[in-house]
Order: sequence, then structure tokens, then C-alpha cells
Amino acid sequence: MKKFINEIDTLYTESLEGFAKAHADIITLNADPYFISRTASTRKDKVAIISGGGSGHEPLHSGFVGKGMLDAACPGQIFTSPTPDQMLAAAQEVATDAGVLFIVKNYAGDVMNFEIAAEMLECPNTSVLIDDDVSLPKTHSTGRRGVAGTLIVEKIVGAAAENGADLATCKALAERVNSNTASMGVALSSCTVPALGQPTFDISEQEMEMGVGIHGERGHETMPLATATEIVKIIAKAIEADLKPKKGQSALLHINGLGATPLMEQYLIYDLAEKFWQQRGIKITRSLVGNYTTSLDMAGVSITLTLLDDEMTQLWDAPVHTPHLRWGC
Amino acid sequence: MKKFINEIDTLYTESLEGFAKAHADIITLNADPYFISRTASTRKDKVAIISGGGSGHEPLHSGFVGKGMLDAACPGQIFTSPTPDQMLAAAQEVATDAGVLFIVKNYAGDVMNFEIAAEMLECPNTSVLIDDDVSLPKTHSTGRRGVAGTLIVEKIVGAAAENGADLATCKALAERVNSNTASMGVALSSCTVPALGQPTFDISEQEMEMGVGIHGERGHETMPLATATEIVKIIAKAIEADLKPKKGQSALLHINGLGATPLMEQYLIYDLAEKFWQQRGIKITRSLVGNYTTSLDMAGVSITLTLLDDEMTQLWDAPVHTPHLRWGC
Repeated sequence: MKKFINEIDTLYTESLEGFAKAHADIITLNADPYFISRTASTRKDKVAIISGGGSGHEPLHSGFVGKGMLDAACPGQIFTSPTPDQMLAAAQEVATDAGVLFIVKNYAGDVMNFEIAAEMLECPNTSVLIDDDVSLPKTHSTGRRGVAGTLIVEKIVGAAAENGADLATCKALAERVNSNTASMGVALSSCTVPALGQPTFDISEQEMEMGVGIHGERGHETMPLATATEIVKIIAKAIEADLKPKKGQSALLHINGLGATPLMEQYLIYDLAEKFWQQRGIKITRSLVGNYTTSLDMAGVSITLTLLDDEMTQLWDAPVHTPHLRWGC
Repeated sequence: MKKFINEIDTLYTESLEGFAKAHADIITLNADPYFISRTASTRKDKVAIISGGGSGHEPLHSGFVGKGMLDAACPGQIFTSPTPDQMLAAAQEVATDAGVLFIVKNYAGDVMNFEIAAEMLECPNTSVLIDDDVSLPKTHSTGRRGVAGTLIVEKIVGAAAENGADLATCKALAERVNSNTASMGVALSSCTVPALGQPTFDISEQEMEMGVGIHGERGHETMPLATATEIVKIIAKAIEADLKPKKGQSALLHINGLGATPLMEQYLIYDLAEKFWQQRGIKITRSLVGNYTTSLDMAGVSITLTLLDDEMTQLWDAPVHTPHLRWGC
């Protein structure tokens, strides 16, 4: 295993300390237990938006703490849920009279730990589960996974909270964005988890993993390597089957690099996906291309489509100033 | 070779078309010959700043076209200089009465082609050569290479041009930033150039390439894989020997991912490099961490240090709104 580290056990803290120093103008690292919160204080009547999850997906979630998006994020160890005490400490730090909304990706550990933290938190709070990954059916025993669509929910709900929306409104909006968002990923290589020291799975030069998540697991199907056009067609059709967009519908198209895929290839995927939707009468009115929800050093991309209404578009466009997503301020 | 492409020959145009669609609010793709320019028109008395170079380094340079930075960028084929007609067409499109400054990375092909374009351009223009890579001596036969420091020059000079600095002032400032900037890279893997179809060089699991450029070439030394602390020490000492910063000096620290290196590792490198400079009394007052000057899918990072004065700091902080660098507007 080749990585830029000192010891496997210190990667997590050394990386967080570097992140905190590099972005001290926006975020603050709180230790014991670890969480990231905004450096600037916010209004007392603003709903606090908190997310978190295992590390290894950077910039998600810590990179999205700041004005217009998250109030705090809890990073777990690599591909491991943060602990309830991290979530509780973060919530106690940023909670306001307006309450706390937890944005939780649908994984058993995250769900359980956020539930424990929510129960211990003595202020109004609620949670929303993100499950945008359409590579698994909704009827799957543990439900669908939360992947790159999480960022879209965090951005839109973060803007609403900044504008003064109350807790129930924020929760309903988060659920609306989630149900209008569908994602699916494909990988050309496995990632290497430091503690494991080798790729999570083997894959030949002629194969790809279709329907991968973001934890280095295999996809739901190992397929022969196909052209970019064919890959986009497979993914976009799965998204279409889930969201059933109508002609004339506006949408946000997000191409997400999983770690080792050059921007050149990501933009090529964007071009093909945009054409796919255009041919079906869907108007791509907003876009996001780059490494936002990663899986360490995995070569792969995911495609996310969010069907937009006017309110969601306005909230997407609203000012955001975080370490890794910025516009309008 | 596993890549998200249709055909090797169409990667360049399909990718550019995706880039242009995704960022149509900021940039416009001009075809025949290809160049990227700002969508919004600029003041007639503003010096036009133009850069360019081979593709495969995205987001450099096209991702930095926009308010506060470049007026146009010319993308060549992968790791290949753009042609003089691209540069000439870009310059003719964005030139103003105040003239054109070409920012050129020091590679033989780029230098020659920008010279030809400059000679053909019938308006006041001048060029600045970027050679921040300290892994080669200044006395090297072709001089030192231009690498991740190029972005720093583009940002600072772009801000000065936006503020109304004249051509001579922009050129002098670019030379000042370049001479106060030093970079060095290290790689754990080769990249794979699509037309070649395989990694450019072989490297074992126990080795790293110290002093790599951004074109998939070997470094100046193949060394046994070391800890992140040792790697940072080697690079930072080379930078120190070149810039000879004095105690109390302010500086910008830029950790640049070369393509396949996770942000977790980049922030760990940032932490260690910041400590190195702090111990020497250098104040890291500005930072930038992420994939900005890449080498396709190479696993590696480079460290760039720019010694800052008040004017350079102010220009770094000035508003910028491009596809891949944004703040303050």
C-alpha cells in the first residue's frame, strides 16, 4: 500500500488538523470528541443543520460546513460511522432555539448512532435519511444507500435554514429533495483502505463494477468494460426508471468523481449525460462536476440527477461559503 | 487501460464540450481553433490575461477563466502544447487597447508556440515564463519547469489586471510572484496517457518518484517510499534552499493533488508542511489544498510556497469567480 501517511493510526487526526489549519477562516476543529463547526457564530433563530459519516469521502461532509450549508459535521474513522458522543457534542455546540436537523446517510451504523445522539439531545431535533442510490431497490432489506445526492440535500436545506425556515419546513424540504434525487456509481478500480492495506476487491483490466457505493464495496454487477456512452446510458436509464421525469422538467446534473478519475473524463461523462437528458426533453439548468463525495482513491464516477422546482433552484443558487463549495458570497 | 472514454481521439473535444456546457454561465468554448474565453465581456481598458498548455492538468488552465483571473485559456491535446493559431485566435478575441499578457509555463513547445502567436498578434503584448519547479536547477539546459505555482501567478496577476494595472505592471508583478514561488512534486504512481495506453513508467510498491513534473515523466530521483513527514522535509528543504525565506515572512502554502491522491492525505501533507514552516518562523497566512494542477490519474502531490508581501496578499484575496476557483464574489 502506497499512501502519504506517517502511521495508519494517526492519519485521521493529522488530516483533520491540516484541514482545520487550512480553513480556519471558515471552520473550527473541536477535539475530544472530534467535530467540525463554523468559526463564525450564527443567528439564534436559525435551525442548525448537522451531518456526518465515515471519513474517506472528503470533501463530504466537513468540507461543506459554512455559511449557507452545514453548521457542523462529525467525521468518523475511515468508512466508519462517527460515534453518538461526536454527534451529541456537535449538536450541543451549534443548537439554537430553532432546533437541530440531522442529515443522515442510510447506513446501519450512521442511522443507529444518530438515533442515540438525537435521543440524548435535550432540544427540538429531527432527522432525515438520505437514500439516493438507485443501484439497490427500495425494497432492499436495509433500504437504499445515501451517496452523492447527500450534498444536494445539504446545500438546498442549508440555504433554507439560512433564510429562516423552521425545523419542520427544513425536514420536509430535505425529504422532498431526497425523493427527487437519484444517483448511481460505476468503478474501474477498487480503493485501498489504509487499515486493510490492499484493494478491497480485485477487478480485471476488462471489467467494471456497476452500481458501486462509496465504501470500496463491489457494485451490484461486474460487467465488461464499456464505452462512456454505454456506461452513461445504463446509469441514466436506472435514474430515469426511479425519478420518472416528465418532458420539460428542469434538473440539476451532478457528475461526481470517486477519487482517481481525471476531470477530463468527468466532463466527458457530463457531456454524454446532458445529451441523454436533453434527448428526453429534460432541461439541465444546474450542474456540478468534480470530486465531492469520494471513496478514497477509487477510479470511478457517479451520476446524480435532482428534479428541480423553482424553490429548490433558488435555494441551490443561494450564497454558500464552505471550504469546498462556494458561490455568491 | 481503463478510462471513461468513447475513443481516444474524441476525448479532447467531448470533454471540452462537457466543460463548456457545465460552466456556460462563466466561460464559452470557441471552436476552430479551440479556446476558452469569458462569457461576460470585460472593460476595454483591462489588460487581457491568457494562458494555456497541454490538457490533462485540469482544472488548470481552462478552469481558471473568469472574473479576477484569466480572460482566455488555450487547451492543447493531452500533454501537448496548444498551437499558435489557438493562442492567436484567443488573443484576438479578448485583446483590449491595454494589451495582452501571456502566462507561459516553461516547456519548449509552449514557449515556441506562444512566441509565434505573440509575433503574429498586432497589438501590444508580452509574455512571462513560469518556472517554479525547484526539482531541477536553474542552470538546467532547458531551465526549470512551470508547475503548480502557475495558478498562483494567474490568480494574483488576474486580480491586478481586474483592478486596472497596465501591461508593464502586470508583467513585472507576474515575474515577482514567479520568483517568490517554488514548487516540488512527488509521485507514488505513474499516470496513464490515453494515447499510450499504459503507465508512463514502472514503479515498485516500495518506491516513490521525487521531483516529478506534471507530464507523467519520472522524477529526478527514485527513492525508497518514506513517511509523509520525511517526504515533506525533503521537499520543503528544497523549497527553502531556493526561496531563502526570512523569519517573520508571510507565505501562501499550496498543496496540490496530482490526480489520484485523496484529500485526507493532502490535508495531512498540509499539516506537516505548515509545521515545518512554522518551526522556521515563517507565517502561513494563506492556503490552498486540492487538485488544481493535475497529471491525469497520477497518485502524487506537490508542495508550493509563495512568499507574500501586502500587495500580493491583497490581490490573492481579491474576488475571483471561475469554474474551479471562487471567493469574494
